[in-house]
Amino acid sequence: MKKKLGLSIAAIFCFLTALGQAPTYLNEKLPVEDRVKDALSRMTLVEKVALCHAQSKFSIPGVPRLGIPELWMSDGPHGVHEEQLWNAWDGAGWTNDSCTAFPALTCLAATWNRDMAGLYGRAIGEEARYRNKDVLLAPGVNIYRTPLNGRNFEYLGEDPFLASQMVVPYIQGVQKNGVAACVKHFAVNNQETLRLDINVELSDRALYEIYLPAFKAAVQQGGVWSIMGAYNKVRGEHACHSDLLLNKILKKDWDFDGVVISDWGGVHDTKQGALNGLDIEMGSYTNGLTTESAFGYNDFYMADAYMKMLKEGAVPMSTVDNKAGRILKLIFRTSMNRERPWGSFANEEHHNVARTIAEDGIVLLKNEPVATKQAPLLPLDAGKYKKILVVGENATRNLMDGGGSSTLKVKKNITPLAGLQAMYGDKITYTKGYESGRPLYDRIDEIPSAKTDSLRAVAIRLAKEADIVIFVGGLNKNYQQDSEGSDRAGYGLSFKQDELITGLVAANPKMVMVLISGNAIEMPWIKKVPAVVQGWFLGSETGNALANVISGKVNPSGKLPFSFPVKLEDCGAHSFDATVYPGDKTNVYYKDDIFVGYRWYDTKKIKVLFPFGYGLSYTTFTYGKPVVSAKAMTNEQTLTVTVTVKNTGNVAGKEVVQLYIKDEKSTLQRPVKELKGFEKISLNPGEEKLVTFTIDKSMLSYYNDIKGSWIAEPGKFEAVIGASATDLRGSAEFILK
Amino acid sequence: MKKKLGLSIAAIFCFLTALGQAPTYLNEKLPVEDRVKDALSRMTLVEKVALCHAQSKFSIPGVPRLGIPELWMSDGPHGVHEEQLWNAWDGAGWTNDSCTAFPALTCLAATWNRDMAGLYGRAIGEEARYRNKDVLLAPGVNIYRTPLNGRNFEYLGEDPFLASQMVVPYIQGVQKNGVAACVKHFAVNNQETLRLDINVELSDRALYEIYLPAFKAAVQQGGVWSIMGAYNKVRGEHACHSDLLLNKILKKDWDFDGVVISDWGGVHDTKQGALNGLDIEMGSYTNGLTTESAFGYNDFYMADAYMKMLKEGAVPMSTVDNKAGRILKLIFRTSMNRERPWGSFANEEHHNVARTIAEDGIVLLKNEPVATKQAPLLPLDAGKYKKILVVGENATRNLMDGGGSSTLKVKKNITPLAGLQAMYGDKITYTKGYESGRPLYDRIDEIPSAKTDSLRAVAIRLAKEADIVIFVGGLNKNYQQDSEGSDRAGYGLSFKQDELITGLVAANPKMVMVLISGNAIEMPWIKKVPAVVQGWFLGSETGNALANVISGKVNPSGKLPFSFPVKLEDCGAHSFDATVYPGDKTNVYYKDDIFVGYRWYDTKKIKVLFPFGYGLSYTTFTYGKPVVSAKAMTNEQTLTVTVTVKNTGNVAGKEVVQLYIKDEKSTLQRPVKELKGFEKISLNPGEEKLVTFTIDKSMLSYYNDIKGSWIAEPGKFEAVIGASATDLRGSAEFILK
Repeated sequence: MKKKLGLSIAAIFCFLTALGQAPTYLNEKLPVEDRVKDALSRMTLVEKVALCHAQSKFSIPGVPRLGIPELWMSDGPHGVHEEQLWNAWDGAGWTNDSCTAFPALTCLAATWNRDMAGLYGRAIGEEARYRNKDVLLAPGVNIYRTPLNGRNFEYLGEDPFLASQMVVPYIQGVQKNGVAACVKHFAVNNQETLRLDINVELSDRALYEIYLPAFKAAVQQGGVWSIMGAYNKVRGEHACHSDLLLNKILKKDWDFDGVVISDWGGVHDTKQGALNGLDIEMGSYTNGLTTESAFGYNDFYMADAYMKMLKEGAVPMSTVDNKAGRILKLIFRTSMNRERPWGSFANEEHHNVARTIAEDGIVLLKNEPVATKQAPLLPLDAGKYKKILVVGENATRNLMDGGGSSTLKVKKNITPLAGLQAMYGDKITYTKGYESGRPLYDRIDEIPSAKTDSLRAVAIRLAKEADIVIFVGGLNKNYQQDSEGSDRAGYGLSFKQDELITGLVAANPKMVMVLISGNAIEMPWIKKVPAVVQGWFLGSETGNALANVISGKVNPSGKLPFSFPVKLEDCGAHSFDATVYPGDKTNVYYKDDIFVGYRWYDTKKIKVLFPFGYGLSYTTFTYGKPVVSAKAMTNEQTLTVTVTVKNTGNVAGKEVVQLYIKDEKSTLQRPVKELKGFEKISLNPGEEKLVTFTIDKSMLSYYNDIKGSWIAEPGKFEAVIGASATDLRGSAEFILK
Repeated sequence: MKKKLGLSIAAIFCFLTALGQAPTYLNEKLPVEDRVKDALSRMTLVEKVALCHAQSKFSIPGVPRLGIPELWMSDGPHGVHEEQLWNAWDGAGWTNDSCTAFPALTCLAATWNRDMAGLYGRAIGEEARYRNKDVLLAPGVNIYRTPLNGRNFEYLGEDPFLASQMVVPYIQGVQKNGVAACVKHFAVNNQETLRLDINVELSDRALYEIYLPAFKAAVQQGGVWSIMGAYNKVRGEHACHSDLLLNKILKKDWDFDGVVISDWGGVHDTKQGALNGLDIEMGSYTNGLTTESAFGYNDFYMADAYMKMLKEGAVPMSTVDNKAGRILKLIFRTSMNRERPWGSFANEEHHNVARTIAEDGIVLLKNEPVATKQAPLLPLDAGKYKKILVVGENATRNLMDGGGSSTLKVKKNITPLAGLQAMYGDKITYTKGYESGRPLYDRIDEIPSAKTDSLRAVAIRLAKEADIVIFVGGLNKNYQQDSEGSDRAGYGLSFKQDELITGLVAANPKMVMVLISGNAIEMPWIKKVPAVVQGWFLGSETGNALANVISGKVNPSGKLPFSFPVKLEDCGAHSFDATVYPGDKTNVYYKDDIFVGYRWYDTKKIKVLFPFGYGLSYTTFTYGKPVVSAKAMTNEQTLTVTVTVKNTGNVAGKEVVQLYIKDEKSTLQRPVKELKGFEKISLNPGEEKLVTFTIDKSMLSYYNDIKGSWIAEPGKFEAVIGASATDLRGSAEFILK
């Protein structure tokens, strides 16, 4: 029997009093490294291992004992995903989670406007923050290698420089909210076909020059707090536990201090996971392993099996301290960050951001008069037309629905038809023209051919009676369209749209084609159709943005972030055999090497349908002659290139002035030219501005895979100013000494 | 066509820049009233009305547009409820929400230890905080009027002073975490029978002296941030929108600045809700009204219908500003409180708190030798017994499961059997003895009589062979036991436990009865059973706490927070006809008036089985003579009563020294005596301490319902020191001038 009472109570009070003086890990005033170290010193091995894998579909635990909160993630990259059930992909049926859908990242890339990327990141970060999501699984920066890749719409185009410039403000905007961006999918994840297992074999030059720069910028300039491993293998190791990618490049060379999160189900091996730079395993299917817990999270590679290896000494304890330490740091930066703002959600401001970005990214691909001496068909002057026929399923479809993890439950969906109706009122009539079925994940929802033919016939008949036809078609988020989990089955449009377009334009030559897509498509009818608008996937404000551009309320200023080849075979990845795309069942060999996108078309002198960097305006711009500030520079010096640009038309407009660098001679073969600078400027009619680019050594360098480093070789270079990759307006030479 | 570009972008940047200078409502340095006013000035009517009712089963929206977060609530009061589905009572299947179960509030009251209430509040508040719950729907302080009330286990006993003293530290402990306590159920909710509609008619004296003081203390001393309206009516109006309770008493007289939340489904009228002090409507069933939304939250009384009344001028706009303003203040105090700690969850510290409170609250009701000249049966010395038989379903049952909204999903459940096994090892054998079925919400899960008889026979046979028998029975959380939604069907034990106990003690006189209950019960066998331990519902650490007390590792020190009458009819509420309990179908008349609990038994001179304030120890305490510091005092003065208490036994122990005040003569009838002070002190063997109570006017006052105010009438008073309401150890007289 106890002789002294009150001891246990006293002890408890002692503990509580001690809490009054915050321990190091809870003291926000101390350096984060000290806090991490202190927290680690208090944690058990069980608690450390628990951090390294999911506890539910989209969360990892914190340390409840120590009051360290959990970390919740949300799919992106175009909006914050609806709340999901604990252990299922299904929605949880909440009614507070209908978000703002921002334009697809391809559209953001098409703005060529860093401010837009900043706005985008900030707004989507605010939405994530309001929804208490600590990690937004975005943005995607995989390089556009083939127009067939089903996820291209989630990425930033074919050029590493453009992607690098756009990803940085996005990340910074998100992270201002105390929400981690999670740049993905690291790395060389350029197709959906066989994505879970395909092994990519590529040269060091392709890796460093083409496929890594946007990630490097995300880490080193964006300061991104987390990165998602890709599904595919690279040089024989799964990207989620690749010694090369994660240990050597990301964590050693780039000094990344954040967290590597696997793609959902991207982990395949405990030992590699332990040793090769993975930090958090998410979404694994561990069928075949013993299931002890109800949900199998203990069966994850980085759960009990990892614990066993740690205890047996098969992998060092330092691995789990490193992982848990990184994760704690991420928690301190996000869910445990007292300073972060509160966010906001699905408000007017965010919808304005979405519309502004959409308007800035829409690309006017073609705009010609229907007859000589007439004005170009666009902008569409309401006064001229009494009957405007809108055709096409995409005019009324929910284009945020489907496509895989980027699918969104939205508060607002202004369809193209709704936007046009708001603009043109009852002049608008609508007919579907074609139909595609529901967005199923792993198969096509077939529409009977007779139905398609009948819809087409109706549309063509109505087109004859209309004053003008606006066709809103293209791809959608269905299986084998623009969708995760599948590549496109071909370069052309599906659902017999080519027949429909040909029929419509034959019935009524005054036809505007609005192409909804995140990919280039084949356009066999391009010569017949006078006006083509690249409408991407524009999010909640799709219809308003399109109507504003079509009507001329907004002057289009988007430029293509990837090339439109005339035919698929023109593309580098499709110029070899099937081992180059989509690979044999085991490997895909990137024989196109560094010659991706315009680098290929330039080098191979292949004429494209629409080039990289291309986009029309309702006004015209005249460029002056580029001037370099010096004839030569050293490795340590910089020089500037300046060029004047003048709006020579009648309306205000924006122009993207592009700087390409040509290396006239190099030890290893280089592309004809590479984008190394761009500025988007606004010009009122008659206004002229001077655009200045600063050139430094890094812009002249290429990756020398023999030396294993970036080098700038002395010699003659050319600074080429262009309005697109093929519309070059002048150049100036200089020497690197 | 727009001639000037860049304006909308500029405007957006402007907005973002403005955010850099936080607006008033986001500026934590400014007074909360200014922040509320500023937020209100920015909100639309739709946003204000949205705050006034649920968006899901347990949340209300924030203002997503303005970045004002949502408010999430969790059932209590003994632990944080598992995560629930958005719009259903079912669990959401999360695996991170198995909490610490703390002892039932009756046990907390039985500690008579304010420090325990503080520990409890702080720990449960930390659990709520970790789970991101902003409002903990706890504690319950409804006065124990009848032993049949199914929810008594969630409350703090029969005495308004004891409840008032215990509720304050609980609330302060919870709210230190930036989590609102929500004291409930306001008010006069003293039975479950007909709870949704029964109208309580009672005197002003009963209301002010008995049923309101704990709420008043919660508001004025505890500073509680929210309060939950009761289901029942009071004087004709539903408590959730009672002009008397909410407008006059709570918000005017008591100056409550928090939020009134309805019980789930407790709102019945829009106009009354608008005008009579309700702030948030939760859980309504609005069957019969038009359903426009999928879930019907817009059909709540305080949703569209309220909006309509506001727009039509049927109720003033000031009502919604007042409600929304209060709710914003609550949000600023909780979900938007940057300073609040992070909490912690289901950790060892919290389990220690749970066990410490359990040990401090267990009441030793009876402890006699089995034969003369022997020591009392307890503490149970392991050395004396080889075969310890444990009998009773409650020894193995999950006692946190069931009982209505207080049901808990727990991380740890040390059953009585597990605790005894840990203490006594393989000396323990177990047999069930009786069975009760599952905890169904609205009916009894009947067990066949033959099965009960067979279980009993087995237990009695085993009892004969044992050296000692520990019976763990009593009530449980089934329908009509200790459970929300139903009162008990009778005062005695169910499942033929009386026959079992009688049989066991006949078979083996060395029997310890451990009574699990939140209520008094009838004990027809009390003279035969030598030792009875009141074991309440003790939470996660039930078995350890019980084993510690039974073994003497902990010396019991709990005191009953309510009387055990010999028979139900002895109780005030049962001394009249059915209109006094449970009421006719419409009204219940509190004819027992202010004479609740010991006030009744004292006044009516009814001998009870165990009195209020009663509890044995393994040691003995001797009281000195009470001494008053002065013979007389004025209204403005205080005087002290001091008494020495000495531990005259052989072990350390704790004693609850109780001060009762007798008003020797008063204009209106008063109870014989009323509790006005208590101190729990720890004493080592031979140790003596001086206990001091300060008496002020308020302790001498009663509510004069003719004058409508509290008055202290001059005259003679007696300060009575007791070890229980019937074990009086001395008194001292004084005069109020």
